[in-house]
Amino acid sequence: MDVYEALYTTRAMRRVRPDPIPYAVQARILDAAIRAPSGGNAQSWRFMLVDDPVVKGRLGPLYRDSIRQLWATAYHDRLERARQAPDEPAHASMLRVTASAQHLADHFEQVPLFMIGFSRGDQTGGSIFPAVWSAQLAARAEGVGSALTSVLGIFHGAEAMSVLAVPEGKGWTMACCVSFGYPTGRWGVAARRPVREVASRNSWDGDLGMDIPEPLWPGGHGPDGTP
Amino acid sequence: MDVYEALYTTRAMRRVRPDPIPYAVQARILDAAIRAPSGGNAQSWRFMLVDDPVVKGRLGPLYRDSIRQLWATAYHDRLERARQAPDEPAHASMLRVTASAQHLADHFEQVPLFMIGFSRGDQTGGSIFPAVWSAQLAARAEGVGSALTSVLGIFHGAEAMSVLAVPEGKGWTMACCVSFGYPTGRWGVAARRPVREVASRNSWDGDLGMDIPEPLWPGGHGPDGTP
Repeated sequence: MDVYEALYTTRAMRRVRPDPIPYAVQARILDAAIRAPSGGNAQSWRFMLVDDPVVKGRLGPLYRDSIRQLWATAYHDRLERARQAPDEPAHASMLRVTASAQHLADHFEQVPLFMIGFSRGDQTGGSIFPAVWSAQLAARAEGVGSALTSVLGIFHGAEAMSVLAVPEGKGWTMACCVSFGYPTGRWGVAARRPVREVASRNSWDGDLGMDIPEPLWPGGHGPDGTP
Repeated sequence: MDVYEALYTTRAMRRVRPDPIPYAVQARILDAAIRAPSGGNAQSWRFMLVDDPVVKGRLGPLYRDSIRQLWATAYHDRLERARQAPDEPAHASMLRVTASAQHLADHFEQVPLFMIGFSRGDQTGGSIFPAVWSAQLAARAEGVGSALTSVLGIFHGAEAMSVLAVPEGKGWTMACCVSFGYPTGRWGVAARRPVREVASRNSWDGDLGMDIPEPLWPGGHGPDGTP
């Protein structure tokens, strides 16, 4: 797969089939992840695959409570506004995303594979997340969908790390929990705010000095013809 | 370019030529970045290109002092040990990386292009860094080397954000400063700790249950034949 096709069509895929992911595919995903650069090439990372139903059964309730807390805190006001006028495009988009995230939480135990990323000494996340995103791009090339989530570590990190026997007092933190599975939906280029709205040159409001047609990827659409 | 070739050969390229990067290439880099997923699809990001010699001239001293502080703090003890036995492989590797980082700092004003990433509401970095890494992978496909650095935001974020006219009190933080340029060195697969040392299954010390030959990428080496 061309790198641009992967970059343009690796969207969050939270609705997946329970079919297992072959070990050979898992190996390619992990081996791609560890090739990423990290600060000082320290590679202060650990990648834990989770596919044991018993372990998923212990994490699932923690994950669902994390999502519940997310809706009740950072998303509370936005969700209220969206529900009051659900037909506004921005609201409709938000309600779609949150419904999709809730679906993942509700079906946590049916997701065939998770990869939990741990890091230490990584103040910004700039060392662990390139590797995690490489894993997701490799998965895309293998036809496997994924979704990066942070809520488990944020709301129930200590309990989840206890379930996973992460050594205490060594500085490890749970950076993310990535779900993997063969998607029920279609690959395609997701809607994003265009470059001109989120980029500038030499100053916050500096003119970018160039036009960017949208989308720029030569394919312009996913392999299945979605826009 | 095949996505696996990009994932395996996009190493930190801190030694670059001063030649400018064409706008068409910059556009492809930015347009790839904004396709990445982000938490709740919030896209709470800004990407600022910096190529103005005046702006680089104001950031350069801040960047060099940031590197100086990094060596004096988090890296102090490791650098001391490395200098005392520079021939040990781990020490030699570390001294190479830090020399390369120092080279980038010393030649900051000669780097043709930087992309500074800003984010807000992104507690872990899981929303901004996939987009930043997508920019670096797109750059790789265009033959442009890059290096992700965090030190400027960590040590001199407030001053740098003032130079760049980032609005205050709106919650924006400087997530990273990525250098871009045509590399003087060769592309290739960088040395990394193998998967079996940094991955497990279902528990911190859980058996991964599969062998992973190294490297797994079908090419097995960079396009120039480096291992």
